[in-house]
Amino acid sequence: MGVSRFLNGFVSGTVCSAFAFIFYNRFTIDMTDEKYTFRKLHAKEAPRLRAVDSGTALKLRGSEILKYGIPDRGLDARLYENHVLCYDQAKKTPIWVAEHITKADLKGPANRRNCNFNIDPTLDPFFTSHVSDYKGSGWSRGHMAPAGDNKYSQDAMEETFYYTNIVPQDVNNNGGFWNRLEMYCRDLTDKFSEVRVISGPLMLPVQEEEGTKKFVKYEVIGNSSVAVPTHLFKVIAAESPQTPGSPVAVGAFIVPNKPIEGSAQLVEYEVKLEELEKSAGIYFLPQLPASKRVDLCSVDSCKLIPQETLELFFITRKLENAETLQRLESAWKDLDRRSLIPDDYMISIYKKKKESLMNK
Amino acid sequence: MGVSRFLNGFVSGTVCSAFAFIFYNRFTIDMTDEKYTFRKLHAKEAPRLRAVDSGTALKLRGSEILKYGIPDRGLDARLYENHVLCYDQAKKTPIWVAEHITKADLKGPANRRNCNFNIDPTLDPFFTSHVSDYKGSGWSRGHMAPAGDNKYSQDAMEETFYYTNIVPQDVNNNGGFWNRLEMYCRDLTDKFSEVRVISGPLMLPVQEEEGTKKFVKYEVIGNSSVAVPTHLFKVIAAESPQTPGSPVAVGAFIVPNKPIEGSAQLVEYEVKLEELEKSAGIYFLPQLPASKRVDLCSVDSCKLIPQETLELFFITRKLENAETLQRLESAWKDLDRRSLIPDDYMISIYKKKKESLMNK
Repeated sequence: MGVSRFLNGFVSGTVCSAFAFIFYNRFTIDMTDEKYTFRKLHAKEAPRLRAVDSGTALKLRGSEILKYGIPDRGLDARLYENHVLCYDQAKKTPIWVAEHITKADLKGPANRRNCNFNIDPTLDPFFTSHVSDYKGSGWSRGHMAPAGDNKYSQDAMEETFYYTNIVPQDVNNNGGFWNRLEMYCRDLTDKFSEVRVISGPLMLPVQEEEGTKKFVKYEVIGNSSVAVPTHLFKVIAAESPQTPGSPVAVGAFIVPNKPIEGSAQLVEYEVKLEELEKSAGIYFLPQLPASKRVDLCSVDSCKLIPQETLELFFITRKLENAETLQRLESAWKDLDRRSLIPDDYMISIYKKKKESLMNK
Repeated sequence: MGVSRFLNGFVSGTVCSAFAFIFYNRFTIDMTDEKYTFRKLHAKEAPRLRAVDSGTALKLRGSEILKYGIPDRGLDARLYENHVLCYDQAKKTPIWVAEHITKADLKGPANRRNCNFNIDPTLDPFFTSHVSDYKGSGWSRGHMAPAGDNKYSQDAMEETFYYTNIVPQDVNNNGGFWNRLEMYCRDLTDKFSEVRVISGPLMLPVQEEEGTKKFVKYEVIGNSSVAVPTHLFKVIAAESPQTPGSPVAVGAFIVPNKPIEGSAQLVEYEVKLEELEKSAGIYFLPQLPASKRVDLCSVDSCKLIPQETLELFFITRKLENAETLQRLESAWKDLDRRSLIPDDYMISIYKKKKESLMNK
């Protein structure tokens, strides 16, 4: 009786039928998904769940239990111009953000100076974080899909400034080690025609004292209680598919969300993909069998550009963009402050700029 | 080029086409789901994402980014004989467990003494918790769908002993306040013909000192790092749909995962559904509009059976089941230890049992 009443309800009403659609599809996925091969392996142990003839009864019971819908923890994937992400409605940060980087994406006129951090207009406002959560928190707004991977399109770059793509990140880490890791991913396009990167936050437990209990502890900031990750991860999958049969170079990295020494090497943060997957509770590359993978750091040096080079690059940019003599001199003094030695190119920029500013 | 190669790949191979199926469906859900009305509201602000003519291009780009599949955080809903749940592959506990309780489910021969805790044969073993995680941890194995809601079927009851339905729970809370809350849900079937309950763990932040930062801190146990929730929640939706137009009585409760005084009242733990939803990041009843809800504790007393009654009930059962004089006397002394006063029924059970055991 309850069942037939329920099915009646399904037939009328657009909201209900939308739900029926989702419901049917999700359970179809549940039952037939090729990915879940363990279901087949264990079919004998769980005959009740897998038996084809009991499928319909189970679905009806499921519909009865979930009369008011499948509890909604958000979409599995949110699609943007040049990235895809899954959002954590509880932590108010992304869970993972996926990109596909080619040389073509890295060239173009898009400029981050024209971008502003924004609430994602496609996200339910009930679950968003806000600028006010970050303000005064001591944490910077860290992009998971970096702005710099979207030089080809101002629109795509702007979408990386949505809060759905942002986590609270240590400011030094954000501008330092993590920045260099992002540059490394871009530089991989010199060697591989396609580079896929999945980035996200992680909460890892620590043992407070030897032999004692393990705890996960993380700060939450602002009225929205945005979760500050203890670590950040990147999964890199690089390949040149025009060479048939060549494996995909895969590296998984876990980086603590804190300042990291300029001398640190990327390989120190490499972990087995499976280790990261177990902690995160996510299979990151479900359709790429282990047999088709090769360790990235065995086919590439996994060397980041030196911290010094990065700093020299930033100072050069400051010199080039200085609009007053005062700013020019301040940028020049940065070299001393950081014990950096300018090369001939920098010296020539400094001299030319000084001359032109003095003649103004 | 990359796109056409990719689409080619899709056509051949069952694994790939299974993925294509999911991929297509998920993004179809993304684009058309009636539930996400905010998408329509914000259509003007995000024309690129919503424009129908750009849909195909976006999907193709999405397929390219996610060439190796949508990162897989597990199914949205796992279907069992008499409950449905969503599992947290990172925390190794359920996220939510949904039930539909009627009087019929509560009668029958199923017995929890014949049940054992088991690994869920339908879960990927990579993400399961194990008996060894709980052993010696100091935490009990707390059912989210209670065994006692499945008296009608031994099979259904056994499935509640799968680790997918279990969280590390304070033992006193498990056998005390939480137990009484579960009984309350069952007793609601006296008043309402259909009772739906969604239960699960929660991680709530605390401010360590006034005016300081807020932190979420929780223990993880065992080699699998099973997350010990700081709190547990229950959403109750009770109705008698045979009375047309009557609202659904909804109550949301958050209970700390620690011992709770016998004198505590359920209403002390009631919260607004929206408050729980914001913390959990889940819409629990996405298809039940607020206008069709009424506060459960305004139409029902929300009174749990007294802790004393529960203890008297357990001691009565011990008296009835005692197989030796020693056990009988020990159960009888429990009354003194807990300052409980036996009623005439208990006294008569004790006397009869004593006589029969002495005559053995």
